Formats: sequence, C-alpha cells, structure tokens
Amino acid sequence: MKKVIVIHLMLLVVGSFQLLAQQQQKDVEKRIDEIISQLTLEEKVKMCHAQSKFSSPGVERLGIPEIWMSDGPHGVRAEIEWDSWNYAGWTNDSCTAFPALTCLASTFNPELAYKYGVAIGEEARYRKKDILLGPGVNIYRTPLNGRNFEYMGEDPYLASVMCVPYIQGVQTNSVAACVKHYALNNQEVWRGHINVKVSDRALHEIYLPAFKAAVKDGEVWSVMGAYNQYNGQHTSHHEVLINDILKGDWAFDGVVVTDWGSAHDTKEAALNGLDIEMGTGTDGLTSSTENAYDYYYLAKPFLEMLKSGEIDESVVDDKVRRILRLMFRTNMSKARPLGRKANQEHFDVAREVAQEGIVLLKNHKSFLPLDPETTQTIAVIGENATRMMTIGGGSSELKTVHEISPLEGIQKRFTKANIIHSMGYASGPSAYGRVIPSHLDADSLKQAAIQVAKEADLVLFVGGLNKNHEQDCENGDRKSLNLPFGQDELLSEIMAVNNHVGVVLVSGNAVAMPWQAQAKAIVQAWYLGSETGHALADVLSGDVNPSGKLPFTFPVKLKDNGAHAFDALSYPGNGVDQVYKEDILVGYRWHDTKQIKPLYAFGHGLSYTSFKIHAAEVQSAQYQAGDFVKLSVNISNTGKQAGAEVLQVYVHDSKAAVMRPLKELKAFKKVKLTPGESKLVEFSIPVDSFAYYDEDKEEWQLEAGQFKLMVGTSSQDIRKTLTIEVK
Amino acid sequence: MKKVIVIHLMLLVVGSFQLLAQQQQKDVEKRIDEIISQLTLEEKVKMCHAQSKFSSPGVERLGIPEIWMSDGPHGVRAEIEWDSWNYAGWTNDSCTAFPALTCLASTFNPELAYKYGVAIGEEARYRKKDILLGPGVNIYRTPLNGRNFEYMGEDPYLASVMCVPYIQGVQTNSVAACVKHYALNNQEVWRGHINVKVSDRALHEIYLPAFKAAVKDGEVWSVMGAYNQYNGQHTSHHEVLINDILKGDWAFDGVVVTDWGSAHDTKEAALNGLDIEMGTGTDGLTSSTENAYDYYYLAKPFLEMLKSGEIDESVVDDKVRRILRLMFRTNMSKARPLGRKANQEHFDVAREVAQEGIVLLKNHKSFLPLDPETTQTIAVIGENATRMMTIGGGSSELKTVHEISPLEGIQKRFTKANIIHSMGYASGPSAYGRVIPSHLDADSLKQAAIQVAKEADLVLFVGGLNKNHEQDCENGDRKSLNLPFGQDELLSEIMAVNNHVGVVLVSGNAVAMPWQAQAKAIVQAWYLGSETGHALADVLSGDVNPSGKLPFTFPVKLKDNGAHAFDALSYPGNGVDQVYKEDILVGYRWHDTKQIKPLYAFGHGLSYTSFKIHAAEVQSAQYQAGDFVKLSVNISNTGKQAGAEVLQVYVHDSKAAVMRPLKELKAFKKVKLTPGESKLVEFSIPVDSFAYYDEDKEEWQLEAGQFKLMVGTSSQDIRKTLTIEVK
Repeated sequence: MKKVIVIHLMLLVVGSFQLLAQQQQKDVEKRIDEIISQLTLEEKVKMCHAQSKFSSPGVERLGIPEIWMSDGPHGVRAEIEWDSWNYAGWTNDSCTAFPALTCLASTFNPELAYKYGVAIGEEARYRKKDILLGPGVNIYRTPLNGRNFEYMGEDPYLASVMCVPYIQGVQTNSVAACVKHYALNNQEVWRGHINVKVSDRALHEIYLPAFKAAVKDGEVWSVMGAYNQYNGQHTSHHEVLINDILKGDWAFDGVVVTDWGSAHDTKEAALNGLDIEMGTGTDGLTSSTENAYDYYYLAKPFLEMLKSGEIDESVVDDKVRRILRLMFRTNMSKARPLGRKANQEHFDVAREVAQEGIVLLKNHKSFLPLDPETTQTIAVIGENATRMMTIGGGSSELKTVHEISPLEGIQKRFTKANIIHSMGYASGPSAYGRVIPSHLDADSLKQAAIQVAKEADLVLFVGGLNKNHEQDCENGDRKSLNLPFGQDELLSEIMAVNNHVGVVLVSGNAVAMPWQAQAKAIVQAWYLGSETGHALADVLSGDVNPSGKLPFTFPVKLKDNGAHAFDALSYPGNGVDQVYKEDILVGYRWHDTKQIKPLYAFGHGLSYTSFKIHAAEVQSAQYQAGDFVKLSVNISNTGKQAGAEVLQVYVHDSKAAVMRPLKELKAFKKVKLTPGESKLVEFSIPVDSFAYYDEDKEEWQLEAGQFKLMVGTSSQDIRKTLTIEVK
Repeated sequence: MKKVIVIHLMLLVVGSFQLLAQQQQKDVEKRIDEIISQLTLEEKVKMCHAQSKFSSPGVERLGIPEIWMSDGPHGVRAEIEWDSWNYAGWTNDSCTAFPALTCLASTFNPELAYKYGVAIGEEARYRKKDILLGPGVNIYRTPLNGRNFEYMGEDPYLASVMCVPYIQGVQTNSVAACVKHYALNNQEVWRGHINVKVSDRALHEIYLPAFKAAVKDGEVWSVMGAYNQYNGQHTSHHEVLINDILKGDWAFDGVVVTDWGSAHDTKEAALNGLDIEMGTGTDGLTSSTENAYDYYYLAKPFLEMLKSGEIDESVVDDKVRRILRLMFRTNMSKARPLGRKANQEHFDVAREVAQEGIVLLKNHKSFLPLDPETTQTIAVIGENATRMMTIGGGSSELKTVHEISPLEGIQKRFTKANIIHSMGYASGPSAYGRVIPSHLDADSLKQAAIQVAKEADLVLFVGGLNKNHEQDCENGDRKSLNLPFGQDELLSEIMAVNNHVGVVLVSGNAVAMPWQAQAKAIVQAWYLGSETGHALADVLSGDVNPSGKLPFTFPVKLKDNGAHAFDALSYPGNGVDQVYKEDILVGYRWHDTKQIKPLYAFGHGLSYTSFKIHAAEVQSAQYQAGDFVKLSVNISNTGKQAGAEVLQVYVHDSKAAVMRPLKELKAFKKVKLTPGESKLVEFSIPVDSFAYYDEDKEEWQLEAGQFKLMVGTSSQDIRKTLTIEVK
C-alpha cells in the first residue's frame, strides 16, 4: 500500500515536472512570437546568415545575442580571425583533444559518449561557443573516405546509440550540438557537387537512422547540411531530406545550418528548410562600404525575394523562430553553467575513451601485454610514434594543451626497458609538420630502422595513416587501401630481421595488411587526442585490458568492400552522379551476405582475458509489433584478468518479402567482469526495429515470421542463435 | 493607523531585503573561500595579470571565467587583436558613441548620467565585456591637459554627483565600472613618471572626493590606478592612496587594476593593493615557448616572492578574493541581463545628453536661435564642421555606427537655408584622417572661407580643437590656450567681412578667445558622439533650449589659471617632480579667491529664456554637525520659452582657522520650467560638507561659526546670499 502511494506521488511529481516543462516551452514560444513581432524584415534576414567565419548576428538593438559556433567534434577549435582562416594568435584557446569519434564508437560504451559530450560541451561553453559543430554520423561506406575518422563507423544502430548521449552531454551545458553532415556525405572527393543516388531503403535503413536518433532521442538543437547533392538537389536545402523528413516526419524544431559554403540557391535555401547559411568564400572581401556576407544566398537575395513577395514572410519567420528557440536553449538560457576546460577530469575522460576504444585486432601467443618490468630492448619504429595527430585533418584540427605521443607514453611506462626509436619512413612535410632533413631520404630512414630492429628484442611498429591531404583528412579521399609511404615494404623487411613485431596502427580508416600473418600483434589505435601515448601504453602494458570493438569492417582488399565491388559510378561516381550500388549492403552487411571474409570483422576486438557465453534465452518465442524481446545472456570471464566484453545481438529475418542482410546489429552491451565472474545480461529489443523500409508504401514494414537472434562477440563470432516469431 | 501599519510592513519588507542581501553576500564570500581553497599558487598569480591586451585569465579547469575589459568611457571600443593594438577587423563592434564626459558634466543632470551609464553598460554587456574602463574623474586642473575631455570638470562636488549614477547605471548590467585614474593624473605630459606633490588638503578636498563618492556612494566594483607618482611612489601600487585611503578608510572591496603598463615594482604591487596588472609592453613578444605576460611584475616575479616566503600567500589570496568578488558581480552572476547596443534608445540618450550638455556661452541680441524657416545663406566654416571626432584621442577612440557631423546636422535641420561650407583651415592629416590635397595650402583654404563668408548672410564657424596628439588626446598636453591651426586669425578675418558670426567650439578644454567680443554667439559644443550634428542643430534651431553649464572655468589667458600662476614646477613640473602650488584653489576657487575675472565662469551657461530667483530661505539659521540645511529657492521662468536653469548653491566659511576658498559648490539642481512657471526648489545640504580637511589632525574638521550660502546660476552670478551659523 505504501508503495502504491509512493508511486502515485512519484507519478504526480513526474507529471508536475512535465506540466512545468510544457508550460515553460509555451512561455518561450510566446516570448519568441513577441520578439519576432518586433523585428524588421532586414533584421530577420540578417539572422539567417553569417557575419564572420564562425558567427551569425543577433539583433543588437534588442539584445538578441550573436551565435558563435566552433568546429568540433573532437575538441573546441582554436580561435581564427574574423574573416580569414588564419589563426588569431590567442593564447587562451588550447583545449583537451578527445579521441576521434571512430575511437568513441569503438568503445561500444554509451556512458563514455555521454561523458565525452559533457566534457567537450563544457569546453565549448567556457570558450563562449553556442553551437559545437558535431558529432558527425555519416556512415562509413568506403575505407577511402578522408573524413571517416570523424564519424561513428558503418553501422546505423551503433552510430545512433553512440551519438545520442554525446549530444545530450554537450547540451547539458546550454551548448547546442550540431549533428552533421545531413546527409549522404560519404566521401570527400567531389563532395561539393556529387549527386548521390541511393535507394529509399538504403537511405532510411543505413544513412538516416543516426540522424533520426539524434533528433528524436538526442533532441539535438541543430543539424548541419552536407556539401553533396541527393537526387539532383543540394542537401543543405533539400525538399525531401529537410522539409519532408527532418522537419516533417521527425518534427525537428531546431536550426539547420549549412556546411561552410554548401548553399547554392536562394529560393531553395529559403523554401527547403535551411535556417542559417555559413560560408567560406568571403575571405578578406569585407570593405568599409561592402560586406561580402550581404551577398550570401540567405542575405540580400533572400531579402529581395521577401520584399517582392516571391517568398512569404512566414518563411523567414519560421527560420528566425528556430534560431530564437536555439538561443533560448543556449545563450539566452538563464540556467547556463560556466563551463570549464583543459582540466584533469577532461583529460581523464579523453584517456578513458582512448583506453576503451583501442582495438586489439591480433595477439599471437599473448605477445601483448608487454611486461613493464622488462629490461628488453624495444625498438619503436615509425613516424606515427612521434607525429602530432591533432594537427591537420581539416576543420577538426585542434590546438591542444598537450598531446602525449606514442613514443612518449611508451617511454614513460616502460622505464626499465631499453627503448630505441627510429622513424623508418617519412610522410613528408605537412602544412604544419617538420621538414625532413634532405639527407634522410626514404632509403636511409628505412635502413636505419632495419638496423634498429635487428638490435632489438622486439619491435613496436607505430605507423598507419596521418592527417595530411588524401590520408585521414577533409576534402580528399585516400587513393589506396594500402599503407602509404612504403610502410608495407618497410614492415616486411623489419619482420624479416626480427620475429617479434607488434604493429600499432594509428588511423581512422581500415588499411590492407599484407604483413598481417607475420605480425605478432596488431593494435588499432585510432587518433586518440591529448592522451594518445598514455592510453596506448596503458593497453600495451596491460594496465588496461583492451575492450574496443571495430565499428567498421577491415576488408582484405578494397574490392571486397561493397562500395568498391562495382564500377566507378558506385565510387567515386562519374564526376556528376554517383550510385550507391551496394544498396543496403554496407559494411558487414555486404561481407556477411555476400560471404566475403573480412580481414577483421565489424565488432571484432580481442581481450587479454577470455569470455564464455553460457546461455542465451528469450522470455517468449512469440511477439507482435510494439513488443520488446526480453533476451538474457549469461557470460563469464574465464581468464585471469578483469576485462570487458561487448555482447552483440544481431538479427536476421529468415524469410522476407525483400532482400534482408544476413545479420544486422540490433542491440549491444559492454559487460565488465572480474576473473571468474559471471553476469546475466538482459536486453530489451524492440521488435519494431526488425522492420525494413518498404519503398512502395514509403513506410517501415514489420513482417510476420521467424527472426533469428544471433548473440556474439563480433559480427563473425556468433556464439548463440535463437529463433523467435513475430505474429 | 493604516498608514502606520503600511509603514511597518514596508520597513519589514525593506528589512527582509537587507537581510537577504546580507545573507547572499555571506554566501558569495563563502563560495569565494571555497574556490580559493581549490586554487594552486600558480593559478592565483595568473589571475593577477593580463593574458592579452584586454583580458585576464580565469581558471579554466574550474570554470572560473576570464575577465574581459574594454576602454570607455564614451562608448565600447572596437575589438583589437589579442596582443597588438591593431584593430581585429570585426564587423560586429560598432557602437553608440555617447558625448564626452565633459559634456555629461555640463548637463548638471545626474538622471542623465544614470541613463548614460545604463546605456553604455548595456553596450558593454552585449559585447561580452566584464569591466568598462570608466568613468574618468580626474580633476580639471589645467586647460592644457590632453585628457580633460574624458573627465568631469574642475569641481569635486560636481564630479562626485555626476559619476555616481553613471557607475550605478553601468553596473545594473552586471558590468563593472572602473573609475579612473586613481589618482592625481591631471596632465598627460610625463604622465608615466612625474611625481606629484600636493598638500593633504588639496588631495582630500579637491582630488579624491569623486573617487570617494564612486566607492562609497556608487559602490564601484573596480578602480584603475594612474601612471604618475605621488610622493615618490607610483599611484597604481601606493601605500597611502590604495592601502590606507581606498581600501582602508573607504573600505573598497573591489579590484584595483593598473592603467596599461603603470606597474613598476613587484613588491609594491603585491603589498600596496594592486590586484590586476594590465599592460602595453608585450606587443608580439609571445612565442610558443615564452609568454611575455609571464614577466609582468605580478606574474613570475610575484610567484617567486610568494614561493620564497618573501610575500605571504594571504596577499595573493586577498587579490584573488577581490577578483572573484568582481566575477560574482559580473560574469558569474546568475542575474546577468543580455545587454543591447546601437539601438535607437541609446542614440536618444546620446542626443539628450548632448542637447543638455551644450553650453551657450554668449548670445548677443539673441543671435541664436536661428529660425529654421530662414532662407538666408549660412556659411558653415571650419574643419570641425565635418571632422569625425570619435576617431583619435587615444584609448577613448570609437568605431561608431554613425557620427552625424555638425554640417550634416545643420543641413538636415535648415533645409530652407542656402548652406555653403568651407573648411577654412586644415589641422593636417591625423593617424586616421584624410590627407589634405597639396594644392589646398593654409592660405588658399583661408581665402576660400573668407570668400564664402562674404557671400553669406551669417557665418557659423565650427572650430575648436580635435583628437590629434597635443590637442584633446591622450599622452600629450596642448602647448597653448589659443585655438590651433590659425583659427584665431581666420576668425578675425571672417569677422572683418561678415558681422554675423556665431562660433561653435568643438573641444574638451577651455580655449582663449581673442575674437570673443566680435562673436555674436558662442556655443561650447564639446565632443558629442554619434548624434553630434543633430544635437547641435537642435540647439541652433531652438528646437532645444540650451541648459548646459560649464564644468570648468574658461580663463582669459593661461596665466589666469591657478596651475599656471606659478613657475614650471607647478606645471608641468621639472621632469621629475611637480608641485601643485595653487593648492586647493583649483578652477573657480582660484579665480574667485584671487579675484581674477574669468572669460566664462564655472557654472555659466545661457538659455533662450530668462529666469528669476525670487527668494531663498533656510528653515533654520542655526545648525550643528550631522544636520542638513533645508534651503528652498523660488525660481520662475520669466521668458517666452520652456527652459531649464541650474540652481547652484555655493558655501563660504566666513571666518576660518585655515584659508577657505571664496566659494565652493555644495549643491545644485536642474529645474525645468515652462514660460511663466514658478517652482519652489528644495535643497537638503549636509552641514558636514562644509568641513575642511585638517592636515595636522588628518581628519575633516567642521568649524563652528558663520557660513554664507550663495544661490546663483553660475559661480559668478550669485542672486541670493544667506547666512547660517554652525554651533
């Protein structure tokens, strides 16, 4: 009885809060209407476009603030000049560099995504930014895409689950997250104009879900359009993507911002849901008599159309309403905290994400961990052992307080070992990087490294990609799946003189590994930000037991990837159009369905301990739409160290009216277990998530029939399979 | 009975608010203590000096914000680069330029000072500034001082009454005002080192009262030290001025900031009350490995002394406590409004202050106002008719949205007149100004103006000083009382060819007027900011009846001014020392006491209407310390237009133990009267304000005996004299 009263009281309280929130929302909307009624047409239009590289104007006479944005998504970018891309030379703008989003995705740990979001949001707030431009949730379609490192991998469910807490965390600071790039911006080559053609199914099942989750579950306050076109219309002002889906179906009530310079037409921008136009193309054009920003599509040309009546004033009112709504949530919110930055707690978050995101791909005869008490000679070979990776890469470049290099981290942890370093190869000078002395040509670097390898008891090769153009960098794609700068050849030669070689790959993309069989261990180390070397040494030393899982498939060769299994029209397109010919079979969906064995599978990642899945049970074998499958899985740590395993639940529609992938991730949980410990892990999986998108009916379709539930520790390592039936 | 209850209730409410405020203050102090306990010594020291030209660091790891300052006091300065004086090229930083503080003082209207403060504070807040560097209340000692235009005149009572509401207005926006320059910064020549020697009486009776009022009545949150020395110690870290008087006697609980680069010694800065050191001397010295700000007196050298124990940690704690207190009042205040800027209301405030501050010095046979219906030819002659005066002058330079020139204002108002303009003289190119075409030499400019004057029915000569070096400009004094650039000669020649010449003086200082007798009208128009031309035309046309009063004396010749009545040691000093030989006899106190007739007296200013003071009465003839003299004055408007008169009450101690000035302003009220209207104006004057500073006892001394109360409309135009007795 007491319990009932308590519950009733709780419901009353919850109900009261909801009523209060609704009332507050109504009050805000009323205030917004009042403000709009005071604005001139010119003021309304001004709010819809940039005034500088990273700000859009308010209405100064009424005290409506400006909006200040900052590039993310891995840290808050350094200050640049008003209307140029030059850094402004401030000394208060160094940040915590968090690991790249591929690493965050690899943690398969939404709690860490929330911590990450809170922390980066605090940094944005301290820096007086109102919108943080992130997270990026474009689906990893091809390993060549230069910007994959900023995204959350190839699976729409994983990206959805990981982006929501990031957004919520950022927004606890009264800073808007800005999920990007909406949508279909899956390569950097020709990104400014390529016209993507993709099936409705692939659009809704693969490319949109993370955006939908960001809006509906994350309640994100802003969305960034993309550069590319979709079905002949630029995505930043797209009738279907923005009007019909984002603001229609999903009822998004926030602000759509362009990518910088992604607007191309005033009328489309006005009518197809773009709210704020930001840009790149005005560098230095501002003179005392003429402001180049006045000539943006959503500036004077927009004003003219409004004045002539060609566009109704309600159109600009809707944009201004959204912008003001974002302001009431951010810089006009009375509840705004103060933020903080570059504090130990943030570095700790960065390190924790890095620790949990590093993926142990291979570990022959427990080559790793290396005993920190060892007195062996360790050769650390490779440019990435010392190269700063927060520099370069495009808009995500950061000025961080510190970036511990892999070499530094290893040196600090393995104090008893004899550590010798050799660069091995040189990627050449980057825009910011060091210049290689001319006498150190490629061959001499290689010979020096081989000499070092010969002298060492074991080799840690730290290579991979970097943040230069046509590596992991905005505005260009890679040209090949192979490691660049002669690393494959170098590795083979090192392995020929030393039989104990562990490879640490610093990259945001899959690479080919012709030397894979000879490597004793392979660690995928991403871009880990400020705490790179510490986190890497944590894992190499065994201080931390790796638990990261691949958020995308490593194919053996490029052609094994779905996007590359067809002609050039599929990738990179013919310069005008592009057709996603693999359709819904992106990533592991392709490999599984087409039975093409990957080099390393989606969801793969080893541990220094071992786990056993003892049993998997469902509460019921029969379900109907709206139900949740209650699945419980019994797992134990059968090894000698504490560790974490990611239980992954894939679903397959056994018999379907349309082609279904062999498996699709529908649930996962990261489970931490001490040695010998067992846990019963419970899942509650919405049956509705088994639906496919029916292209004819233009709606989601849940088919009756049998579905297989596959429980495993990677997409290629299914331990238990259950069958349920949907009526 | 009801009334009693209501009053009791009101007292209860007021009492509750006071208790609440006290409790809040206690809570804040407790929070401050908590924060201080979390700070490292390094962090505390960092908060005590600049990180850029206009900001000082917070503690980013704890979310303690930075402090951003902006030059005032007439508008919020444009953004400059991080560590150089170059403008940053932003387009969101144009402001409302308010009239210079000399003009504000001339209004003799504290309500306008409050409006001015609220408005400029709103602009600072919108621009995200935490401290506005103003107002300036240094006493006008010599008409040569290049920075007089930023101050409030020669009378300590007037400056006190006018600065308090300005400060209160600014601070309603959670923006700190910063009263400056504390103290004795009364000239720009040798300001960086000159050692002022002045009697204790002059210090306390003349140079400190406005600062005291700012602290005790205005509750100002920050004070800026000065460049100069006083008794051998730099004023920005002065044992007597800061420790004993400001923070001791006056119990100032806010922050003392240097003028930029005015600190000279670490130990003095540490121990003598300086809280934040700002600077100028680090331009571009910042490199990636070395930060020039680290070498400020209150940076590393301070840290070293704290570490060695030479200075106790309680010293830096006190500074940090004050800085945090300022933050809780500004950028950490939850109640902070959003501000606004360059709005019509602010331009209206600027215009209103300008209208009321313009002083009509002379008006022979009602030469003014000019009928706006006139079809006469008006020659507007003089460079200042078109010269921008918000540019130049030093740190008070502004980037304003608009500055209506005198010519433009006249043209707009006198649409039926034939207005012809001639420059007449050229001051030469300023740092920002136009370059005079070489063929326009001085003589040809003059001849052209004389030709124009000949053709005109009347001449409006718009001349005066400008904002160039050694005019009304920081970091230099004028060289002469006379008008520069040949204006005196030009005016004589114009007056020789046209008998109807009105002179508009644009300046912040008194000038000599050898042509005074020939001028039909003389208007002192100050620097009026954005609405210059409009306000001037308002007065010239009679739309506004002038009511401004001089806040300082215009002497006939330089020697007539007290500071210049002695040798060079009195002004400008010998390069090392300076002795204020006129002692307390500053301004009209000198002229009156020494019976030196001024050209125009302190408090003088004409109207287009006339006023008559019918009677002045005191409630009682006898008083004692702590009493208030209740004085009532009957005044009426005997003319045909609405207008305002400033009733001024001066006091003289008839027989004193020490020399007393012939009169000293102790009260004033601006009275607005319609034609024929009479008002009974009541004053309540504290008898304690009749005291003098006793140098031996080091305290204020109210002598018993007779005091004369002189009621007038200027210091030279006393209409009624009463005698009272203090027991």
